[in-house]
Amino acid sequence: METKTLETLFVDTLKDIYYAERQIMKALPKMARAAKAPELKAAFTMHRQETEGQVERLQQIFELLGKRAQGKTCPAIDGILDEGSELMDEYKDSPVLDAALAAAAQAVEHYEMARYGTLSSWAGILGYDKATALLEATLQEEKNADQKLSAVAEAVNPVAMAAE
Amino acid sequence: METKTLETLFVDTLKDIYYAERQIMKALPKMARAAKAPELKAAFTMHRQETEGQVERLQQIFELLGKRAQGKTCPAIDGILDEGSELMDEYKDSPVLDAALAAAAQAVEHYEMARYGTLSSWAGILGYDKATALLEATLQEEKNADQKLSAVAEAVNPVAMAAE
Repeated sequence: METKTLETLFVDTLKDIYYAERQIMKALPKMARAAKAPELKAAFTMHRQETEGQVERLQQIFELLGKRAQGKTCPAIDGILDEGSELMDEYKDSPVLDAALAAAAQAVEHYEMARYGTLSSWAGILGYDKATALLEATLQEEKNADQKLSAVAEAVNPVAMAAE
Repeated sequence: METKTLETLFVDTLKDIYYAERQIMKALPKMARAAKAPELKAAFTMHRQETEGQVERLQQIFELLGKRAQGKTCPAIDGILDEGSELMDEYKDSPVLDAALAAAAQAVEHYEMARYGTLSSWAGILGYDKATALLEATLQEEKNADQKLSAVAEAVNPVAMAAE
C-alpha cells in the first residue's frame, strides 16, 4: 500500500474544500432569496460571486499540481448546510429569520477559514509558493465575508427584536 | 402557532451547541489516543478537560433561563466529527496522521467559535448579561485552543515531513 504523505493529505483536503465550495455555490442563492433585509441579500449575492473566484483558484491549484480538479464528498459541509436548511425551514415565518440565516452563513465561513488556514500552512511546508498565495487570497476573503456577516447581523438583529 | 422570537432562536442554538459539546467530549479521548506527538496528545487531553467546563457553563445558562439543559441533534458537528473519524482511519498508518488530526480538531474549534460568537451577540441583545459573560469566556477558550493547535501543527508538520 502506498504511503500517505503530506502531499496526499494536501490533495485530499483540496478535494474536500473543492466539493464544499461547489455545495456552497448552490446554497447561497437560496439563502439570498430567503433573506429579508436587503443588505443580507446583497451580502449573500456578493459572496456567491466571490465563491466562483475561489472555485477557480482551486482549479488553478489542481492544475499547478498536474492533477484533475476533483471533489470528494465532505460530510462536514453537508452537515453544516443541512443544519442551515433546517433552520431556514423552521424560521421561515419568523421575524428572526435573517438572524438565523446570518448565523448559518457564519458557520459555513468558519469551516472554510479552518480548511484554508490548514491548506495554506501545508502548501507552505510543501514549498508550493503559488498555491500558498492563492490559498491566502481566499482565506482573506473568507475572513472578510465573516466580518461583513457579523456587521450585517448586528444591524439586522435589533430590527428583528423590534418586530417581535 | 407560536411566533419564533430571538429568544427561541437563542435557546435552539444553545441546545445545538450543548449536543455538539457532548459529542466533542466523546471524540477528544479517541483523538488523544490516536495522536503520536506527546504535545498533540496533551493538547487534546487538556481540551477535553476544558470542554467539561464549557458544558457546565451551558448548564448554568439553561438554569439562568429557567430551562432544563437539553441537547438537539446538530448535523453540523456530526458531519465535522464523521469527517475527522474518516480521516483518522485513512491516515492511521501514515506519518502525517498528527497533521490530519490537528486539522480535524481545528475544524471543530472553528465551528464552536462561530456558534459561541453568534450566541454571545444574541445574549447581549436579549440583555442576558450573565449568559453573555459565560459565552464570552468559552469563546475565548475556543480561540486559544485553535491557536494552540496551530502552534502544535506547525511544530508537528515538519517532523511529519522529515519522516516521509
